[in-house]
Amino acid sequence: MVALITDFGLKDHFVGVVKGKILQELEKPPFPTFIDITHEIPPQNIVAGALKLKFSYRYFPVGTIFLAIVDPGVGSLRRALVIETENYFFVGPDNGLFSPVLKEQKLSGIYEILTERMLRPPYSTTFHGRDLFAPAVAHLLKGVPFSEWTRPIEYEEIVSIEIPDPEPIAGGYRLDIIDIDRFGNLITNFSQELLKGGRAKVLINGQEVRLVRTYSDAERGELVALFSSEGLLEIAIREGSAKALFGDDLPEILILFFS
Amino acid sequence: MVALITDFGLKDHFVGVVKGKILQELEKPPFPTFIDITHEIPPQNIVAGALKLKFSYRYFPVGTIFLAIVDPGVGSLRRALVIETENYFFVGPDNGLFSPVLKEQKLSGIYEILTERMLRPPYSTTFHGRDLFAPAVAHLLKGVPFSEWTRPIEYEEIVSIEIPDPEPIAGGYRLDIIDIDRFGNLITNFSQELLKGGRAKVLINGQEVRLVRTYSDAERGELVALFSSEGLLEIAIREGSAKALFGDDLPEILILFFS
Amino acid sequence: MVALITDFGLKDHFVGVVKGKILQELEKPPFPTFIDITHEIPPQNIVAGALKLKFSYRYFPVGTIFLAIVDPGVGSLRRALVIETENYFFVGPDNGLFSPVLKEQKLSGIYEILTERMLRPPYSTTFHGRDLFAPAVAHLLKGVPFSEWTRPIEYEEIVSIEIPDPEPIAGGYRLDIIDIDRFGNLITNFSQELLKGGRAKVLINGQEVRLVRTYSDAERGELVALFSSEGLLEIAIREGSAKALFGDDLPEILILFFS
Repeated sequence: MVALITDFGLKDHFVGVVKGKILQELEKPPFPTFIDITHEIPPQNIVAGALKLKFSYRYFPVGTIFLAIVDPGVGSLRRALVIETENYFFVGPDNGLFSPVLKEQKLSGIYEILTERMLRPPYSTTFHGRDLFAPAVAHLLKGVPFSEWTRPIEYEEIVSIEIPDPEPIAGGYRLDIIDIDRFGNLITNFSQELLKGGRAKVLINGQEVRLVRTYSDAERGELVALFSSEGLLEIAIREGSAKALFGDDLPEILILFFS
Repeated sequence: MVALITDFGLKDHFVGVVKGKILQELEKPPFPTFIDITHEIPPQNIVAGALKLKFSYRYFPVGTIFLAIVDPGVGSLRRALVIETENYFFVGPDNGLFSPVLKEQKLSGIYEILTERMLRPPYSTTFHGRDLFAPAVAHLLKGVPFSEWTRPIEYEEIVSIEIPDPEPIAGGYRLDIIDIDRFGNLITNFSQELLKGGRAKVLINGQEVRLVRTYSDAERGELVALFSSEGLLEIAIREGSAKALFGDDLPEILILFFS
Repeated sequence: MVALITDFGLKDHFVGVVKGKILQELEKPPFPTFIDITHEIPPQNIVAGALKLKFSYRYFPVGTIFLAIVDPGVGSLRRALVIETENYFFVGPDNGLFSPVLKEQKLSGIYEILTERMLRPPYSTTFHGRDLFAPAVAHLLKGVPFSEWTRPIEYEEIVSIEIPDPEPIAGGYRLDIIDIDRFGNLITNFSQELLKGGRAKVLINGQEVRLVRTYSDAERGELVALFSSEGLLEIAIREGSAKALFGDDLPEILILFFS
């Protein structure tokens, strides 16, 4: 099983070629099942890719190989990685894409791909999805020993990024919007665990909105807060789009606790 | 074989996670083939989802499981269904998504999913594709007896929706536009069978247009009427877009019979 | 293995129905793996489809069947083709979609599909992906002898299109932009081989830009030229979009050699 997440989009041939190349390297069955997580990560947005991967990986079968490519440093000296955790494999550039996952998964090993062994002429300097990462995934699928195409490196050596925590204020937090989904829901960085079972009110641009359990608890068109499927506070409009309401002028969102 | 149709879009992780979850529940091969019908049903548009499903299902192999999710009532008390027909299985919310199909397929059984047996903590109130319907599809694939996770219900108990029929007028019909496809073709609710082999003329905003057999029978740029691949009257421009011509100001379309 | 490239888009049911129909015709396993190259070829743009296919096919395993449908002549008398090369099969309309590939692949045979044997009533005049090409792919997969559903034709009989070569000017070439990718990179028709290892400078609207090796060799926001993963000169902005800079007013691009 190979799950893919990239910023390649769907209008070009990039995603299809990466899959084709993996199969071409394998030459013969068994061929893996490909599952697309998304290919619409905004171009070069590593944080967005890291978040979507964090939101997804735990719902895949043990043994899944995640191929994640958001790679503004393609063709430069940035490392290419294979990471093995207790349950999964992750393949992609060393730029922080895997940071949120590695905070949640028990690590078995981190390996730098020996690019000089993987890239076969003629190779490009701009499409390592095809020329570097696809062959690496094929090596993993074929069970080629790591020692033949990687070298082990330490956790401390790889690039790490932070998803910002909500900012503490008097009596609560000021929240960041870290994702906006297809329905126009604004996903914040406030995790339900921070509530600690207590009660709170949510202010959007200074106006309180109801904190409901699910969309259909709201009135049609009502702006509400609720906890997303990933346990993060989100701002939504029932059968509407909070994103469309605010446009580019995203609102200030506060959560205030009361006892 | 699992065919999917949702309003989840492709920019988020939703579709990938639903597939991952089905495979995770199955744990081991055989894994199903996934076919995406579309994930770009307009958000919460049950009628659009029902139509696209009606346009599609009969071209799939016997035994296909259709997972259809357009679910404005997610997390509420709306039922979750498994429907078995002579040829297929349908899984999704009870909101009318399956109404047009059920008028065409011989029914074998309708089952309400026992959500309390399917939802395993921690589960969300907003992403039943992942937490409820994916496990249900896995139960179907594994052949778990219906009695263990559903209860049979009657056709009369489930929600039904109607796709509007064309409005009879003197000498013909006034048509509704029920779908606009990627090419900008305007698909109406007038079925070729209503012609009964007779002759007719088509008026768009009062102007007659030619009723042709296929796009290339028109002149480049000519606005014409023809019967779609689903046997419905559609308005098209050869190598152009009727949608772009009319914009949001969709035209009045009449069909008038003559003998 | 069946690789698909069409202008069907992803908002409708078209792609899913083509795949469903192939499987329905096969009736039982083994079912092929489907790989989507892209379905976002601009409507009816044969040249764009031919280019994306040329950019992709050589990265797929030997034996892959490419189903390519960009088909403004659907329902007319245009031929439907199956082409066998040394490594691959190609199925689609006879309108030039396969011209660039056929210049690169050794040809084994060209066959016209006998549409009267393939189209089974009721069939449409507008969706040959479903009614003609899907059954043809299933015939190929089942190994039905060509003589039962095709007739051999000559290379000279099929439609051919040309991708324009760059225009020679004093000391170099004036380039055409033949593709714009998801990142806003402007892909030209100047192949790296035309450099013959020599040196050159690139002028965009009369201003020289640097010719770099990869995106990250540029400064953030810098407009540069480089060779794409297909060996074609492209114009790019690091972590930006050349397309967004120029909008619809695409620039003049010259390449001038110096010794």
